[in-house]
Amino acid sequence: MSGPPPAVAAVRSAVRRVLSALPADTTALVACSGGADSLALAGAVAFEAPRVGRSAGAVTVDHGLQEGSVTRADAVAKALRGLGLSPVMVRAVEVGGSGGPEAAARRARYEALDGAAAAHAPAVVLLGHTLDDQAETVLLGLARGSGARSLAGMAPRNGGYLRPLLDLDRATVRGACHLMGLDPWEDPHNLDPRFARARVRHDALPALERTLGPGIAAALARTATMLRSDADTLDSFADALYAQAAGASPPGLPPLEAAAATAGPELAVAPLETAPDALRTRVLRRAALAAGCSPSALTARHVRELDRLVVEWHGQAHIDLPGGVRGRRAADRIRFER
Amino acid sequence: MSGPPPAVAAVRSAVRRVLSALPADTTALVACSGGADSLALAGAVAFEAPRVGRSAGAVTVDHGLQEGSVTRADAVAKALRGLGLSPVMVRAVEVGGSGGPEAAARRARYEALDGAAAAHAPAVVLLGHTLDDQAETVLLGLARGSGARSLAGMAPRNGGYLRPLLDLDRATVRGACHLMGLDPWEDPHNLDPRFARARVRHDALPALERTLGPGIAAALARTATMLRSDADTLDSFADALYAQAAGASPPGLPPLEAAAATAGPELAVAPLETAPDALRTRVLRRAALAAGCSPSALTARHVRELDRLVVEWHGQAHIDLPGGVRGRRAADRIRFER
Repeated sequence: MSGPPPAVAAVRSAVRRVLSALPADTTALVACSGGADSLALAGAVAFEAPRVGRSAGAVTVDHGLQEGSVTRADAVAKALRGLGLSPVMVRAVEVGGSGGPEAAARRARYEALDGAAAAHAPAVVLLGHTLDDQAETVLLGLARGSGARSLAGMAPRNGGYLRPLLDLDRATVRGACHLMGLDPWEDPHNLDPRFARARVRHDALPALERTLGPGIAAALARTATMLRSDADTLDSFADALYAQAAGASPPGLPPLEAAAATAGPELAVAPLETAPDALRTRVLRRAALAAGCSPSALTARHVRELDRLVVEWHGQAHIDLPGGVRGRRAADRIRFER
Repeated sequence: MSGPPPAVAAVRSAVRRVLSALPADTTALVACSGGADSLALAGAVAFEAPRVGRSAGAVTVDHGLQEGSVTRADAVAKALRGLGLSPVMVRAVEVGGSGGPEAAARRARYEALDGAAAAHAPAVVLLGHTLDDQAETVLLGLARGSGARSLAGMAPRNGGYLRPLLDLDRATVRGACHLMGLDPWEDPHNLDPRFARARVRHDALPALERTLGPGIAAALARTATMLRSDADTLDSFADALYAQAAGASPPGLPPLEAAAATAGPELAVAPLETAPDALRTRVLRRAALAAGCSPSALTARHVRELDRLVVEWHGQAHIDLPGGVRGRRAADRIRFER
């Protein structure tokens, strides 16, 4: 008796590792669009969950953005039930609000998934992102040019969201979907060049493969893992420096929220002056955000100007920051005013 | 009287800032290939140096890789003398040894530049790298997938090497070259698809611009600056952790070299266990290098295996590392053997 084909074995084994590490009473809910990646995930979860004694269901989100989306969502739900998953939910959402269309759809989707998980608590949500999705995320982050955090990609686990397939390439996962006899649906948005991710997938990554070699997606994914670890470490050091520069915060409140609750944080210059660049600029950035600057408007250049109040102080006037916020140095403290 | 065109003004102003910050007795030597970037740099240095009271010369390196390279180098030297730079040196080098052809040429070039600077000490070498070169360097680093340091690009100053044009895009610098009436030489290697940098310049970066927008080179350069600052900070924390884990080192010797001089470093597990991931893995990587692993063969996966001796210890046998090195845990210490 031979085992399953290698692609199926790889997907199942990744899923088994994640499922068997869950507490026994936790329900695993597969977030499934009906696309090949999340359908392969659903197939492997349906296979492994009873074997490791976990209960597993699925959620499919109807974004209502394309004609026939209701029918499509029902067909996906039917396929998921056919795999033996239970409960299987269809959640219809309304996409809208601020940001681009991708950001709005993403926000609506995660709200629906949060709701589904809450309805079956204790539950986690399994997402079908692959190594290639990770590589695309890193490239999209590169375009923002906003440092380690934007290159850190997606975490294998983030709160109640888990990504069991993040180390597997898309070709393996799609192959497994096919080999499991599942019939995936290709979302036309994935091919639509109006969407940045589709352009990255079909133009940027192939160009990088041509110029830099076929290992580029894996290299980008490795980069994300390392930079996420770097960013976590630097953030935790920055927490400590922020607390020190902003003075003692009320017990029980983390320093950032304590600062945000006041009219604007006030930072002592002395601990900042002797801190390494990477920590000082992180603390100044956070303070500017706590003072009311919006994250999207606050650039590295603003933070650098603010930093000159600390490290190149020669009596400058205030620094104008986005959102009508001003940074100013007075009496060896950095103050923010609106 | 109107001033110079904006591109010329931008290049001169960047050069003036760097020259005027040099000690008065230091000679600035422009490293000039005759290409548009370094020729524009030479033109601006020749213009600004007398105005800020600094002496400035140039070096051109004959790599001997193309027919007529001697004539070419002499023509470049003549043009540099014509600008009023002095001394102007031609240094012929022999390219060879280990690594690819680009790495070998680079090594030979920097040796020649080091020699030229030593002959005119105190001297610094000015390099004509632009923001676009920086973006290409970041992409080449991405392909290695080896973390923040490989994405940190080139520093504006590294020892005696300075890069005054690193914040200016190539179009501005080339425009300035033309507007100064200088006649650049296009190195055919810059167009030769056998070279990774040429492929990045002519294929990968344009594809990223198409998919992610025209600001991509600037975004990559900003990323490099931020990640260099992160990497410097993490390295300095890792220095301290290494010293703590490896025990006191002989006075006057930095901990890394002290460790390299022994048969293999020995690290106490206790301080590592409680350290953040990004520092622990940096210390383990350095220890493995000090024990004799080659930097190119030692992967993130090796380091992760080694790390499991610290954070997932359940009596594993040794870990095989490149170069016949073995890592082993014994008596709450990590030891290396050959």
